[in-house]
Amino acid sequence: MRVFGIDPGSARTGYGCVETDGNHHQLIVCGAIASPARSALPERLLRIHDGLGKLLAAHRPDCVAIENLFHAKNVKSALVLGHARGVAVLAAVEAGVPVVEYTPAEVKLAVTGYGRAEKVQLQRMVALLLGLEHPPSPHDAADAIALAICHAHARGATAAPGRAPRRLRSWRHVKLADLPRRQAP
Amino acid sequence: MRVFGIDPGSARTGYGCVETDGNHHQLIVCGAIASPARSALPERLLRIHDGLGKLLAAHRPDCVAIENLFHAKNVKSALVLGHARGVAVLAAVEAGVPVVEYTPAEVKLAVTGYGRAEKVQLQRMVALLLGLEHPPSPHDAADAIALAICHAHARGATAAPGRAPRRLRSWRHVKLADLPRRQAP
Repeated sequence: MRVFGIDPGSARTGYGCVETDGNHHQLIVCGAIASPARSALPERLLRIHDGLGKLLAAHRPDCVAIENLFHAKNVKSALVLGHARGVAVLAAVEAGVPVVEYTPAEVKLAVTGYGRAEKVQLQRMVALLLGLEHPPSPHDAADAIALAICHAHARGATAAPGRAPRRLRSWRHVKLADLPRRQAP
Repeated sequence: MRVFGIDPGSARTGYGCVETDGNHHQLIVCGAIASPARSALPERLLRIHDGLGKLLAAHRPDCVAIENLFHAKNVKSALVLGHARGVAVLAAVEAGVPVVEYTPAEVKLAVTGYGRAEKVQLQRMVALLLGLEHPPSPHDAADAIALAICHAHARGATAAPGRAPRRLRSWRHVKLADLPRRQAP
Protein backbone atom coordinates (compact mmCIF):
# COMPACT_ATOMS: atom_id res chain seq x y z
CA MET A 1 0.00 0.00 0.00
CA ARG A 2 1.27 3.44 -0.89
CA VAL A 3 0.31 6.39 1.31
CA PHE A 4 0.95 10.02 0.42
CA GLY A 5 1.06 12.41 3.39
CA ILE A 6 0.48 16.15 2.98
CA ASP A 7 1.24 18.86 5.54
CA PRO A 8 -0.34 21.93 3.95
CA GLY A 9 0.79 25.51 4.46
CA SER A 10 0.57 28.62 2.31
CA ALA A 11 4.32 29.29 2.54
CA ARG A 12 5.48 25.68 2.41
CA THR A 13 3.53 22.47 1.85
CA GLY A 14 5.33 19.32 2.95
CA TYR A 15 4.74 15.96 1.30
CA GLY A 16 5.98 12.44 1.81
CA CYS A 17 5.12 9.21 0.03
CA VAL A 18 5.66 5.89 1.78
CA GLU A 19 5.29 2.30 0.56
CA THR A 20 4.18 0.23 3.51
CA ASP A 21 2.84 -3.16 4.56
CA GLY A 22 1.83 -1.77 7.96
CA ASN A 23 5.07 -2.89 9.63
CA HIS A 24 7.81 -1.93 7.22
CA HIS A 25 7.86 1.47 5.60
CA GLN A 26 9.93 2.53 2.63
CA LEU A 27 10.29 6.19 1.69
CA ILE A 28 9.46 6.80 -1.97
CA VAL A 29 9.74 10.56 -2.16
CA CYS A 30 9.52 13.53 0.18
CA GLY A 31 10.03 17.27 0.07
CA ALA A 32 8.22 20.59 0.26
CA ILE A 33 6.55 22.88 -2.23
CA ALA A 34 7.77 26.36 -1.30
CA SER A 35 6.58 29.69 -2.64
CA PRO A 36 8.74 32.82 -2.90
CA ALA A 37 8.19 34.98 0.17
CA ARG A 38 6.57 37.82 -1.73
CA SER A 39 4.33 35.82 -4.02
CA ALA A 40 0.59 36.47 -3.79
CA LEU A 41 -1.81 33.90 -2.36
CA PRO A 42 -3.37 33.01 -5.77
CA GLU A 43 0.06 32.10 -7.19
CA ARG A 44 0.89 30.11 -4.06
CA LEU A 45 -2.33 28.12 -4.37
CA LEU A 46 -1.63 27.41 -8.03
CA ARG A 47 1.88 26.20 -7.17
CA ILE A 48 0.62 23.91 -4.39
CA HIS A 49 -2.22 22.48 -6.51
CA ASP A 50 -0.11 21.87 -9.62
CA GLY A 51 2.87 20.56 -7.65
CA LEU A 52 0.78 18.04 -5.72
CA GLY A 53 -1.13 17.09 -8.87
CA LYS A 54 2.12 16.16 -10.65
CA LEU A 55 3.44 14.23 -7.64
CA LEU A 56 0.20 12.26 -7.24
CA ALA A 57 0.19 11.43 -10.95
CA ALA A 58 3.82 10.30 -10.80
CA HIS A 59 3.64 8.18 -7.63
CA ARG A 60 0.01 6.96 -7.78
CA PRO A 61 -0.67 6.46 -4.06
CA ASP A 62 -3.62 4.42 -2.78
CA CYS A 63 -4.48 7.05 -0.23
CA VAL A 64 -3.73 10.65 0.78
CA ALA A 65 -3.36 11.41 4.50
CA ILE A 66 -3.73 15.03 5.57
CA GLU A 67 -3.77 16.79 8.92
CA ASN A 68 -7.21 17.41 10.38
CA LEU A 69 -6.73 20.82 11.91
CA PHE A 70 -9.32 22.51 14.02
CA HIS A 71 -6.85 24.62 15.85
CA ALA A 72 -5.03 27.65 14.56
CA LYS A 73 -3.51 30.72 16.15
CA ASN A 74 -6.48 32.82 15.09
CA VAL A 75 -9.27 33.13 12.56
CA LYS A 76 -7.07 34.86 9.98
CA SER A 77 -4.38 32.17 10.03
CA ALA A 78 -7.11 29.49 9.91
CA LEU A 79 -8.53 31.10 6.77
CA VAL A 80 -5.15 31.22 5.02
CA LEU A 81 -4.34 27.64 6.07
CA GLY A 82 -7.78 26.58 4.85
CA HIS A 83 -6.95 27.90 1.36
CA ALA A 84 -3.80 25.77 1.12
CA ARG A 85 -5.56 22.73 2.55
CA GLY A 86 -8.47 23.21 0.16
CA VAL A 87 -6.35 23.08 -2.99
CA ALA A 88 -4.39 20.12 -1.56
CA VAL A 89 -7.60 18.15 -1.00
CA LEU A 90 -8.78 19.18 -4.46
CA ALA A 91 -5.57 17.83 -6.05
CA ALA A 92 -6.20 14.47 -4.33
CA VAL A 93 -9.84 14.27 -5.46
CA GLU A 94 -8.86 15.19 -9.02
CA ALA A 95 -6.28 12.39 -8.95
CA GLY A 96 -9.02 9.98 -7.82
CA VAL A 97 -7.26 9.24 -4.52
CA PRO A 98 -9.29 8.92 -1.28
CA VAL A 99 -8.42 11.38 1.49
CA VAL A 100 -8.12 10.47 5.16
CA GLU A 101 -7.60 12.89 8.02
CA TYR A 102 -5.77 12.63 11.31
CA THR A 103 -5.40 15.14 14.11
CA PRO A 104 -1.86 16.11 15.20
CA ALA A 105 -2.42 14.16 18.44
CA GLU A 106 -3.41 11.01 16.51
CA VAL A 107 -0.27 11.29 14.39
CA LYS A 108 1.96 11.71 17.43
CA LEU A 109 0.28 8.80 19.22
CA ALA A 110 0.52 6.49 16.22
CA VAL A 111 4.15 7.30 15.42
CA THR A 112 5.76 7.94 18.82
CA GLY A 113 3.29 6.32 21.21
CA TYR A 114 2.64 9.63 22.98
CA GLY A 115 -0.05 12.08 21.83
CA ARG A 116 1.79 15.10 23.15
CA ALA A 117 5.23 14.24 21.82
CA GLU A 118 7.57 17.05 20.84
CA LYS A 119 8.12 17.82 17.15
CA VAL A 120 11.73 16.63 17.45
CA GLN A 121 10.66 13.26 18.91
CA LEU A 122 8.25 12.80 16.02
CA GLN A 123 10.91 13.59 13.44
CA ARG A 124 13.44 11.22 15.06
CA MET A 125 10.89 8.41 15.13
CA VAL A 126 10.13 9.00 11.44
CA ALA A 127 13.85 8.64 10.67
CA LEU A 128 14.05 5.46 12.80
CA LEU A 129 11.03 3.84 11.14
CA LEU A 130 12.38 4.62 7.68
CA GLY A 131 15.95 3.55 8.48
CA LEU A 132 17.36 7.01 7.79
CA GLU A 133 20.45 8.48 9.41
CA HIS A 134 18.82 11.88 9.94
CA PRO A 135 15.20 13.10 10.06
CA PRO A 136 13.96 14.12 6.61
CA SER A 137 14.39 17.80 5.84
CA PRO A 138 12.62 20.25 5.76
CA HIS A 139 10.52 19.51 8.83
CA ASP A 140 7.31 19.92 6.77
CA ALA A 141 8.38 16.84 4.80
CA ALA A 142 8.98 14.88 8.02
CA ASP A 143 5.52 15.90 9.28
CA ALA A 144 3.95 14.74 6.02
CA ILE A 145 5.72 11.37 6.25
CA ALA A 146 4.51 11.04 9.86
CA LEU A 147 0.93 11.43 8.56
CA ALA A 148 1.51 8.67 6.01
CA ILE A 149 2.99 6.34 8.66
CA CYS A 150 0.09 7.19 11.00
CA HIS A 151 -2.35 5.99 8.35
CA ALA A 152 -0.31 2.83 7.76
CA HIS A 153 -0.39 2.05 11.49
CA ALA A 154 -4.01 3.03 11.99
CA ARG A 155 -5.57 1.19 9.08
CA GLY A 156 -3.23 -1.75 8.92
CA ALA A 157 -1.97 -1.78 5.39
CA THR A 158 -1.90 -5.59 5.36
CA ALA A 159 -5.48 -6.01 6.53
CA ALA A 160 -7.61 -7.93 4.07
CA PRO A 161 -10.51 -6.00 2.53
CA GLY A 162 -13.61 -6.25 4.68
CA ARG A 163 -11.70 -6.89 7.88
CA ALA A 164 -11.91 -4.27 10.60
CA PRO A 165 -9.03 -1.79 10.45
CA ARG A 166 -6.28 -2.40 12.95
CA ARG A 167 -6.15 -0.23 16.00
CA LEU A 168 -3.69 2.58 16.38
CA ARG A 169 -0.30 1.07 17.16
CA SER A 170 2.78 2.77 18.44
CA TRP A 171 6.49 2.13 18.64
CA ARG A 172 5.85 0.36 21.94
CA HIS A 173 4.46 -2.55 19.94
CA VAL A 174 7.19 -2.57 17.31
CA LYS A 175 9.67 -5.40 17.71
CA LEU A 176 13.27 -4.42 17.11
CA ALA A 177 13.50 -7.11 14.42
CA ASP A 178 10.66 -5.38 12.58
CA LEU A 179 12.56 -2.13 12.22
CA PRO A 180 14.33 -1.65 8.91
CA ARG A 181 18.08 -1.63 9.10
CA ARG A 182 19.78 1.72 8.82
CA GLN A 183 21.23 2.43 5.45
CA ALA A 184 24.43 4.26 4.66
CA PRO A 185 23.70 7.93 3.97
CA MET B 1 -15.56 45.58 -18.57
CA ARG B 2 -16.87 42.28 -17.29
CA VAL B 3 -16.60 41.49 -13.57
CA PHE B 4 -17.31 38.09 -12.03
CA GLY B 5 -18.22 38.16 -8.33
CA ILE B 6 -17.84 35.09 -6.12
CA ASP B 7 -19.30 34.59 -2.64
CA PRO B 8 -17.68 31.33 -1.54
CA GLY B 9 -19.16 28.86 0.90
CA SER B 10 -18.73 25.11 1.34
CA ALA B 11 -22.49 24.46 1.18
CA ARG B 12 -23.35 27.06 -1.47
CA THR B 13 -21.07 29.30 -3.53
CA GLY B 14 -22.81 32.29 -5.10
CA TYR B 15 -21.65 33.83 -8.36
CA GLY B 16 -22.72 36.76 -10.50
CA CYS B 17 -21.24 38.15 -13.70
CA VAL B 18 -21.88 41.77 -14.64
CA GLU B 19 -21.00 43.77 -17.77
CA THR B 20 -20.35 47.32 -16.68
CA ASP B 21 -19.00 50.68 -17.82
CA GLY B 22 -18.81 51.87 -14.19
CA ASN B 23 -22.22 53.56 -14.31
CA HIS B 24 -24.49 51.07 -16.06
CA HIS B 25 -24.47 47.44 -15.09
CA GLN B 26 -25.96 44.56 -17.02
CA LEU B 27 -26.41 41.14 -15.47
CA ILE B 28 -24.88 38.40 -17.62
CA VAL B 29 -25.41 35.37 -15.39
CA CYS B 30 -25.90 34.60 -11.72
CA GLY B 31 -26.65 31.63 -9.51
CA ALA B 32 -25.19 29.36 -6.87
CA ILE B 33 -23.22 26.13 -6.90
CA ALA B 34 -24.86 24.00 -4.25
CA SER B 35 -23.69 20.67 -2.86
CA PRO B 36 -25.96 17.95 -1.48
CA ALA B 37 -26.20 18.31 2.28
CA ARG B 38 -24.48 15.01 3.02
CA SER B 39 -21.65 15.26 0.50
CA ALA B 40 -18.10 15.20 1.85
CA LEU B 41 -15.85 18.25 1.75
CA PRO B 42 -13.57 16.87 -1.03
CA GLU B 43 -16.58 16.41 -3.35
CA ARG B 44 -17.87 19.87 -2.48
CA LEU B 45 -14.51 21.43 -3.33
CA LEU B 46 -14.39 19.58 -6.64
CA ARG B 47 -17.90 20.78 -7.49
CA ILE B 48 -17.07 24.42 -6.65
CA HIS B 49 -13.77 24.35 -8.54
CA ASP B 50 -15.15 22.67 -11.66
CA GLY B 51 -18.35 24.73 -11.66
CA LEU B 52 -16.52 28.04 -11.42
CA GLY B 53 -13.95 26.90 -13.98
CA LYS B 54 -16.68 26.22 -16.54
CA LEU B 55 -18.44 29.53 -15.82
CA LEU B 56 -15.21 31.53 -16.13
CA ALA B 57 -14.38 29.79 -19.41
CA ALA B 58 -17.88 30.48 -20.76
CA HIS B 59 -18.18 34.14 -19.72
CA ARG B 60 -14.52 35.24 -19.89
CA PRO B 61 -14.58 38.06 -17.31
CA ASP B 62 -11.79 40.67 -17.06
CA CYS B 63 -11.68 40.35 -13.32
CA VAL B 64 -12.87 38.20 -10.41
CA ALA B 65 -14.05 39.97 -7.25
CA ILE B 66 -14.18 37.92 -4.06
CA GLU B 67 -14.95 38.71 -0.45
CA ASN B 68 -11.94 39.43 1.74
CA LEU B 69 -12.99 37.79 4.97
CA PHE B 70 -11.00 38.04 8.13
CA HIS B 71 -13.96 37.41 10.33
CA ALA B 72 -15.70 34.13 10.94
CA LYS B 73 -17.72 32.67 13.76
CA ASN B 74 -14.76 30.62 14.93
CA VAL B 75 -11.54 28.98 13.83
CA LYS B 76 -13.31 25.85 12.58
CA SER B 77 -15.73 27.73 10.34
CA ALA B 78 -12.84 29.90 9.10
CA LEU B 79 -10.94 26.76 8.09
CA VAL B 80 -13.89 25.30 6.19
CA LEU B 81 -14.63 28.64 4.51
CA GLY B 82 -10.94 28.91 3.61
CA HIS B 83 -11.16 25.60 1.72
CA ALA B 84 -14.01 26.86 -0.47
CA ARG B 85 -12.38 30.23 -1.00
CA GLY B 86 -9.06 28.54 -1.87
CA VAL B 87 -10.49 26.46 -4.71
CA ALA B 88 -12.48 29.50 -5.96
CA VAL B 89 -9.30 31.60 -6.15
CA LEU B 90 -7.53 28.67 -7.81
CA ALA B 91 -10.24 28.47 -10.51
CA ALA B 92 -9.72 32.18 -11.26
CA VAL B 93 -5.93 31.88 -11.47
CA GLU B 94 -6.22 28.83 -13.72
CA ALA B 95 -8.54 30.83 -16.01
CA GLY B 96 -5.92 33.60 -16.14
CA VAL B 97 -8.27 36.14 -14.54
CA PRO B 98 -6.90 38.60 -11.93
CA VAL B 99 -8.50 38.43 -8.47
CA VAL B 100 -9.47 41.48 -6.39
CA GLU B 101 -10.74 41.39 -2.83
CA TYR B 102 -13.17 43.57 -0.93
CA THR B 103 -14.29 43.42 2.68
CA PRO B 104 -18.03 43.12 3.38
CA ALA B 105 -18.02 46.74 4.63
CA GLU B 106 -16.41 47.97 1.39
CA VAL B 107 -19.07 46.15 -0.64
CA LYS B 108 -21.90 47.62 1.43
CA LEU B 109 -20.40 51.11 1.23
CA ALA B 110 -19.85 50.94 -2.53
CA VAL B 111 -23.29 49.53 -3.33
CA THR B 112 -25.60 51.10 -0.73
CA GLY B 113 -23.54 54.07 0.50
CA TYR B 114 -23.52 52.72 4.05
CA GLY B 115 -20.86 50.33 5.30
CA ARG B 116 -23.15 48.72 7.86
CA ALA B 117 -26.17 48.28 5.62
CA GLU B 118 -28.46 45.32 6.22
CA LYS B 119 -28.32 42.33 3.87
CA VAL B 120 -31.80 43.17 2.60
CA GLN B 121 -30.80 46.75 1.73
CA LEU B 122 -27.83 45.43 -0.21
CA GLN B 123 -29.96 42.97 -2.14
CA ARG B 124 -32.57 45.63 -2.99
CA MET B 125 -29.89 48.02 -4.21
CA VAL B 126 -28.44 45.27 -6.42
CA ALA B 127 -31.89 44.77 -7.97
CA LEU B 128 -32.28 48.55 -8.48
CA LEU B 129 -28.87 48.94 -10.12
CA LEU B 130 -29.53 46.03 -12.46
CA GLY B 131 -33.11 47.09 -13.28
CA LEU B 132 -34.60 43.91 -11.85
CA GLU B 133 -38.08 43.60 -10.34
CA HIS B 134 -36.84 41.44 -7.47
CA PRO B 135 -33.43 40.85 -5.84
CA PRO B 136 -31.59 37.96 -7.49
CA SER B 137 -32.12 34.61 -5.80
CA PRO B 138 -30.57 32.84 -3.94
CA HIS B 139 -29.08 35.52 -1.70
CA ASP B 140 -25.57 34.11 -2.29
CA ALA B 141 -25.98 35.13 -5.94
CA ALA B 142 -27.06 38.65 -4.94
CA ASP B 143 -24.03 38.92 -2.65
CA ALA B 144 -21.73 37.85 -5.49
CA ILE B 145 -23.26 40.45 -7.83
CA ALA B 146 -22.79 43.10 -5.13
CA LEU B 147 -19.07 42.22 -5.11
CA ALA B 148 -18.90 42.67 -8.89
CA ILE B 149 -20.70 46.03 -8.71
CA CYS B 150 -18.41 47.09 -5.86
CA HIS B 151 -15.40 46.49 -8.07
CA ALA B 152 -17.03 48.38 -10.97
CA HIS B 153 -17.66 51.36 -8.68
CA ALA B 154 -14.31 51.21 -6.95
CA ARG B 155 -12.03 50.84 -9.95
CA GLY B 156 -14.07 52.83 -12.43
CA ALA B 157 -14.57 50.47 -15.28
CA THR B 158 -14.29 53.34 -17.80
CA ALA B 159 -10.96 54.60 -16.50
CA ALA B 160 -8.25 54.55 -19.15
CA PRO B 161 -5.30 52.25 -18.40
CA GLY B 162 -2.65 54.03 -16.37
CA ARG B 163 -5.06 56.48 -14.79
CA ALA B 164 -5.61 56.27 -11.09
CA PRO B 165 -8.60 54.12 -10.16
CA ARG B 166 -11.71 56.03 -9.23
CA ARG B 167 -12.63 56.26 -5.61
CA LEU B 168 -15.37 54.22 -4.06
CA ARG B 169 -18.70 55.67 -5.13
CA SER B 170 -22.12 54.99 -3.74
CA TRP B 171 -25.72 55.36 -4.77
CA ARG B 172 -25.63 58.88 -3.34
CA HIS B 173 -23.65 59.89 -6.42
CA VAL B 174 -25.79 57.99 -8.90
CA LYS B 175 -28.10 60.23 -10.93
CA LEU B 176 -31.57 58.83 -11.44
CA ALA B 177 -31.13 59.12 -15.21
CA ASP B 178 -28.09 56.86 -14.91
CA LEU B 179 -30.08 54.01 -13.43
CA PRO B 180 -31.20 51.35 -15.89
CA ARG B 181 -34.92 51.18 -16.48
CA ARG B 182 -36.77 48.29 -14.92
CA GLN B 183 -37.50 45.46 -17.26
CA ALA B 184 -40.60 43.36 -17.35
CA PRO B 185 -40.03 40.13 -15.39
